[in-house]
Amino acid sequence: MITHISPLGSMDLLAQVEVNMLKRSANSELYQLFRNCSLATLNAGSKTDNTKELLDKFLSYDINVITKERGIKLELVNPPQSAFVDGKIIRSIQANLFAVLRDILFVNNQVSVIQGILTPTGGKNDDSFYITNLVFAILRNAHALHVGEDPNLIVCWGGHSINEIEYYYARQVGMQLGLRELNICTGCGPGIMEAPMKGAAVGHAQQRYKESRFIGMTEPSIIAAEPPNALVNELIIMPDIEKRLEAFVRMSHGIIIFPGGPGTAEELLYILGILLDPANQNQALPLILTGPKECAAYFDAIDNFVRSTLGEQATKLYQIVIDDPEEVARIMKNGVKQVKSARLASGDAYGFNWTLKIADDLQHPFDPTHENMAALNLHKDQPIERLAADLRRAFSGIVAGNVKQSGMKRIEQYGPYKLQGDAQMMKQLDELLRSFVEQHRMKLPGGTAYQPCYEICY
Amino acid sequence: MITHISPLGSMDLLAQVEVNMLKRSANSELYQLFRNCSLATLNAGSKTDNTKELLDKFLSYDINVITKERGIKLELVNPPQSAFVDGKIIRSIQANLFAVLRDILFVNNQVSVIQGILTPTGGKNDDSFYITNLVFAILRNAHALHVGEDPNLIVCWGGHSINEIEYYYARQVGMQLGLRELNICTGCGPGIMEAPMKGAAVGHAQQRYKESRFIGMTEPSIIAAEPPNALVNELIIMPDIEKRLEAFVRMSHGIIIFPGGPGTAEELLYILGILLDPANQNQALPLILTGPKECAAYFDAIDNFVRSTLGEQATKLYQIVIDDPEEVARIMKNGVKQVKSARLASGDAYGFNWTLKIADDLQHPFDPTHENMAALNLHKDQPIERLAADLRRAFSGIVAGNVKQSGMKRIEQYGPYKLQGDAQMMKQLDELLRSFVEQHRMKLPGGTAYQPCYEICY
Amino acid sequence: MITHISPLGSMDLLAQVEVNMLKRSANSELYQLFRNCSLATLNAGSKTDNTKELLDKFLSYDINVITKERGIKLELVNPPQSAFVDGKIIRSIQANLFAVLRDILFVNNQVSVIQGILTPTGGKNDDSFYITNLVFAILRNAHALHVGEDPNLIVCWGGHSINEIEYYYARQVGMQLGLRELNICTGCGPGIMEAPMKGAAVGHAQQRYKESRFIGMTEPSIIAAEPPNALVNELIIMPDIEKRLEAFVRMSHGIIIFPGGPGTAEELLYILGILLDPANQNQALPLILTGPKECAAYFDAIDNFVRSTLGEQATKLYQIVIDDPEEVARIMKNGVKQVKSARLASGDAYGFNWTLKIADDLQHPFDPTHENMAALNLHKDQPIERLAADLRRAFSGIVAGNVKQSGMKRIEQYGPYKLQGDAQMMKQLDELLRSFVEQHRMKLPGGTAYQPCYEICY
Amino acid sequence: MITHISPLGSMDLLAQVEVNMLKRSANSELYQLFRNCSLATLNAGSKTDNTKELLDKFLSYDINVITKERGIKLELVNPPQSAFVDGKIIRSIQANLFAVLRDILFVNNQVSVIQGILTPTGGKNDDSFYITNLVFAILRNAHALHVGEDPNLIVCWGGHSINEIEYYYARQVGMQLGLRELNICTGCGPGIMEAPMKGAAVGHAQQRYKESRFIGMTEPSIIAAEPPNALVNELIIMPDIEKRLEAFVRMSHGIIIFPGGPGTAEELLYILGILLDPANQNQALPLILTGPKECAAYFDAIDNFVRSTLGEQATKLYQIVIDDPEEVARIMKNGVKQVKSARLASGDAYGFNWTLKIADDLQHPFDPTHENMAALNLHKDQPIERLAADLRRAFSGIVAGNVKQSGMKRIEQYGPYKLQGDAQMMKQLDELLRSFVEQHRMKLPGGTAYQPCYEICY
Repeated sequence: MITHISPLGSMDLLAQVEVNMLKRSANSELYQLFRNCSLATLNAGSKTDNTKELLDKFLSYDINVITKERGIKLELVNPPQSAFVDGKIIRSIQANLFAVLRDILFVNNQVSVIQGILTPTGGKNDDSFYITNLVFAILRNAHALHVGEDPNLIVCWGGHSINEIEYYYARQVGMQLGLRELNICTGCGPGIMEAPMKGAAVGHAQQRYKESRFIGMTEPSIIAAEPPNALVNELIIMPDIEKRLEAFVRMSHGIIIFPGGPGTAEELLYILGILLDPANQNQALPLILTGPKECAAYFDAIDNFVRSTLGEQATKLYQIVIDDPEEVARIMKNGVKQVKSARLASGDAYGFNWTLKIADDLQHPFDPTHENMAALNLHKDQPIERLAADLRRAFSGIVAGNVKQSGMKRIEQYGPYKLQGDAQMMKQLDELLRSFVEQHRMKLPGGTAYQPCYEICY
Repeated sequence: MITHISPLGSMDLLAQVEVNMLKRSANSELYQLFRNCSLATLNAGSKTDNTKELLDKFLSYDINVITKERGIKLELVNPPQSAFVDGKIIRSIQANLFAVLRDILFVNNQVSVIQGILTPTGGKNDDSFYITNLVFAILRNAHALHVGEDPNLIVCWGGHSINEIEYYYARQVGMQLGLRELNICTGCGPGIMEAPMKGAAVGHAQQRYKESRFIGMTEPSIIAAEPPNALVNELIIMPDIEKRLEAFVRMSHGIIIFPGGPGTAEELLYILGILLDPANQNQALPLILTGPKECAAYFDAIDNFVRSTLGEQATKLYQIVIDDPEEVARIMKNGVKQVKSARLASGDAYGFNWTLKIADDLQHPFDPTHENMAALNLHKDQPIERLAADLRRAFSGIVAGNVKQSGMKRIEQYGPYKLQGDAQMMKQLDELLRSFVEQHRMKLPGGTAYQPCYEICY
Repeated sequence: MITHISPLGSMDLLAQVEVNMLKRSANSELYQLFRNCSLATLNAGSKTDNTKELLDKFLSYDINVITKERGIKLELVNPPQSAFVDGKIIRSIQANLFAVLRDILFVNNQVSVIQGILTPTGGKNDDSFYITNLVFAILRNAHALHVGEDPNLIVCWGGHSINEIEYYYARQVGMQLGLRELNICTGCGPGIMEAPMKGAAVGHAQQRYKESRFIGMTEPSIIAAEPPNALVNELIIMPDIEKRLEAFVRMSHGIIIFPGGPGTAEELLYILGILLDPANQNQALPLILTGPKECAAYFDAIDNFVRSTLGEQATKLYQIVIDDPEEVARIMKNGVKQVKSARLASGDAYGFNWTLKIADDLQHPFDPTHENMAALNLHKDQPIERLAADLRRAFSGIVAGNVKQSGMKRIEQYGPYKLQGDAQMMKQLDELLRSFVEQHRMKLPGGTAYQPCYEICY
Repeated sequence: MITHISPLGSMDLLAQVEVNMLKRSANSELYQLFRNCSLATLNAGSKTDNTKELLDKFLSYDINVITKERGIKLELVNPPQSAFVDGKIIRSIQANLFAVLRDILFVNNQVSVIQGILTPTGGKNDDSFYITNLVFAILRNAHALHVGEDPNLIVCWGGHSINEIEYYYARQVGMQLGLRELNICTGCGPGIMEAPMKGAAVGHAQQRYKESRFIGMTEPSIIAAEPPNALVNELIIMPDIEKRLEAFVRMSHGIIIFPGGPGTAEELLYILGILLDPANQNQALPLILTGPKECAAYFDAIDNFVRSTLGEQATKLYQIVIDDPEEVARIMKNGVKQVKSARLASGDAYGFNWTLKIADDLQHPFDPTHENMAALNLHKDQPIERLAADLRRAFSGIVAGNVKQSGMKRIEQYGPYKLQGDAQMMKQLDELLRSFVEQHRMKLPGGTAYQPCYEICY
């Protein structure tokens, strides 16, 4: 089956050089990226969270850019039928397809622009300044940075496979945020990525709020596993995980962390690592951990872990609110006003937080080899923000060792990671992870009993 | 507590004569109508379905129109707090308040206009021509008649107190309608009045459809018991039940009947009475009875009743679809296209079906006194559409005798209604009502065993 | 030639009773009014200023309202071809046609509404309160009263047959007003009615101002002689001259009087009669008399006349600005700000000045019979605002005696009007009129030497 | 005097790297370009057409980009006061300032992008493919390429210093184009660059046409001499003369040539050079030469010159219309429909004519040194389109030798250009230029008698 799709939302015009870039023959790598991301987008709302499964199911899927007198069109060959109603593509999927095209082309082109600007002044591709400007340029190109709009964007983090009670709770929080005309940005997929948007949509409708933004921020390696849910009306594809995290925090005017697995804990450590940085002491960024009353113990465990590892000071950076959606929304609404004051004071943009410092160790990818894991500094005798950053890495590595293919293979081959650190801290880490297992927040390969993938070296 | 509310949506300018009309002293009756309808609207989303309860709870509530340099404002004294978020009124409620003002003022004024036009030509207030023009004028004044828009309005009827399975099903139907860019008109309250709108909102969001219309069509005597749900973005207050029904059918391009109580059955008989009229044989109006698989028996019972009383011919006017939301939406989408063709052929407006004939006995209110009930002609030896009309009246009277205060008082005083009719027909009527009782579709006073309020006289 | 015209701007839906009203047979008077006004509108931009000439030229012109599935259409039979470009009607003319339909239908209907409201309280059709409410209702129905918009409407008065220097000057004033984002309301035709709009259009374009309002306020007896110019984007037809004048002053936030004939002087006396009323002493309404340097003597003459008849006090109500468009616009811009403050202080609407008192003698038509003229009180021993009102009437009568058919016939039959008044005042009146003759500001029948149509009785 | 200007229209967000680029210290060349173009833009509507005069007059003018919480602002130091009304910048000038910023930044950045794309495939900066893609990318970035819009853009060429009759005529043509809802693109300045826009604005107003596009297409070396007129609502700055010409023809759906000087003749030869190319024989592009009846001789002369040099065939590519604005507009309206058909047939974009071939010799700048002039091939024994291209160059050189500083200096130093060509052709060229002198269409240094700057070598 072949269908032609007209542009919606953006990218209705391509230069011939750009069309050429996306030809299968011309640039196999770029074409593959485009094909796979577009397939994931067409698969929006599907239940599978397995990338390989998706790709295997649609082997005959193909996408081509063709030029027409009214601009370009996308030719889809054998696309998933769930993207269509009575033979016509669902319009949010149509728009998202072109967002994919936009981001993939732009990122590819923009890299050389910023490089070109920086080179004469001695800048390099991995400079912090370069990375932040690239993140900005991608978001600007996606029209995601609204000028003249008061701060109103709440980032919601949390697990994508949560239970019904948690889902319902997140929807209630979303409705209260929506009633206060706040917008939502999540990681784009189902579960916690969807629930607050669904609630906010009803809240916005009640307020006749027409500027609803439901931003799905994703990146190529996860878009297939967590395809955009039906509510996402702005899809943004960042080039990698770290730039995606940076985009989240520089755009957000408030962050809510719902229950989730170890990935969620990693996100908490990421934002704490930033906010603990003395350079950021004047930053305003409301941060709330919240869930239904069934989650009280879960947040207690996390709170205790943060207190004992990063100290009382770190726990002051967030508020835990249990079972009170209205209170969460009220705090966010007030917090967002403080964000506005702080930006006015610092002269920083509302739409993009330029002054926030993100340290090098948070901005660059971490590869959890045994060497890298062994080299982590998990002692308290260092600046607290660096400890947070290394804890995040430890966490990231342990998660990989537990469930990611590359990590598990390494553990199989070389045995458990050796971690050097305070005994006490390691013990707490261990306990936290065990509690995740008990609460079914961690996918385990084969469902066997939990077997730690690390050892502590005193 | 006193709050001032600015206009939203309509009625931002009043002449001084109009402001005077709404003063408490000037026109006590109009003022009371305005006060009570506005209170019901402020109570949107509340769970009570008891008018008296609501009025008693807010005895100190008061509303005044005041004039300001930027137009008028409404002054609310002690309004229900559920209408506010952090001290600010919810915008859909704000807009609905002014819709109330608009319709009450307009209807009051317009009566004299049309009367003025008709009088010279000998027309009277109760002429069919007068009534239809008044219905039209009210809808036009409410900006409810969209010119140049293709037919797309689906009227959904059904009970306001339904179970969860039925609610979820109606939401699914709504989503499928929304995905096909159809709009929804219901009777304004909770239950079936809300569910299809909720589903359609998500469907519209997926299609980026911005013209969502969720019309709540109500009238003063029921608005308090069934206050506008949160999704309603066009509130219309018709002057009475019959004009409300006429507005439904003249505006609709398709009608879906979900499960409900005897009121729903009455609505079915109303529309069958119209469509059976030989004058309407060229009318196109898709009509579907639908529900989840648990409702199959319910629709069977209704279908059998219609067949045996009004004949096979009547059952051809509707389709029963069990447990298939997509199919319902597909039939409606196709049906709406036929409506368009039919209107093009007859030259009738898309927005308002002028050519549909509504017979006198359907257009005028029926007062179920014992005399009127005894005078009903429930025999088969008459035109089928007249039988349908009298059956509707019988139904209406029985419902009143069962649950409405005035009806129950009459039964208490004079004993059961005497109905003259075919024995067989009466038996079927009886059975149908009993099945409603068994399925908990009929509110019974005190919850006692069902005691028929009528007798059959052979 | 027969053409069908779709609605633009308003009145896209008519009730069947309304369509019936406009049928030739049903209501000959209303139909004739509609036919003639629509013909004048189709003739927009034409150079003739002779009503009879126009009507005679298009004897075979006819207009019918027909109903279609997408609303109503107007069927034009043998319309003026100047209204079309390549066979398609010019869109501003199309919109104006429907404005004609709107106002004629509405005024006809509305009279009975307000009457209906007032009757119970003992109000009558000629009450000041009734008239003002009717003026308001007509303007509201024409969507001419914008809520929430800051005061910005400048009324421009002046002659419709002016020379090129005056035209160019008025255009410059318009451009300066436009650069300050002020809107224009005039009497709808060519000359001074057009020039400020043309200038303001360029000023608005430079300011990217999208809300340009070029209101043409006319009434049935003059629309044919002064058909809407090409710039008019809001056409309003008031029922008679006095309601048109009232609409001008209640909507305006500033008035500019350009050079003109005796009609312009009459307008000046009208507004002075209002502003001199002690009830209006707190009103803010900037009033400027302006023209190119060639007009200095003209304004001197008027200024002297006002000073010697109404006193120094009256001359303080306006400013004369010679040859300085920028200064005119600056004064207006500042004046409009004071209007805003005054309305805020009085709580009056921005869009419609309810609190301005317009005395009975200004609100009702004046019929210049010999009796009425003789009865005018042109002595100084009376309230100054009453003198202004009677001066306006004297003026109005003299103009009629000079150039209007009915007036000229009376003079022919009964001889000159006898005016009782201060000798000095009469002399000045005489001089002023003579100067108008010399400056070619007064159309004289046959172009003969000026022969006064009145006598002074000491 | 220092003023801060907020963005309007575009470029409200800059990355920090971009802000840095425009700092005076960082990049002196780019900063100077930005400063001078912004100064010219602020000087919009001024009468001087002398670049040096302007720059000298505003030596103390300065511009800086500063960052604010709601995006960037421009800080203007001592800007021309004519850009302000009552202290506030005129909004069209404000928007144009940011268009300058946009184009200067973008062109600077984009060069490296396209280079980056082309390099791997062996493309070079001066490739035709590269140039066309750059032109496209600049126009796209300026949002000048509207997708889904039917062809409607008429390019008007002609002199910037014309007489009043010609100005008035061009305005009439503009009005007729505007009444047919065609848009206008010119070279941005006064005279013929302004008149059609002014007329079209009135035509658009009459048609209530809201999408008015008045594109001013300029480039850094002429913007100061021909600053944007008040009507321009899209300012585009192309990097050089040749890319500006290419932008004109690839965007246009019709070209009108009004009377002008030798520059206008050069433009005619440019477009004839393109249309004569056999590769373009299926292109549809209506081309009209038009003027008031006073210009009949002027167009005769040009027509004769084309006929005798390029042959009958070349004269078939255009129509000459004398003194008939309505006819010009009708031909264009019909021509534009043929453009649409042709694009549909070829599958080419409406907004940008990709398939038009522009030969190398027309795409690259020509430097009129004595060597280059002597090397021109002005004989008939070659493809006609190449002759047209070389004639254009000859023309361009002669113009330079007559009036441009660099050219005049060369003539002074080395004597007249030696042209090798057909005697007959040279004679005709000579005559044509002399007729321009007689008609005062050529600015002569010092106003002395015309002294040819070339010699013909037989």
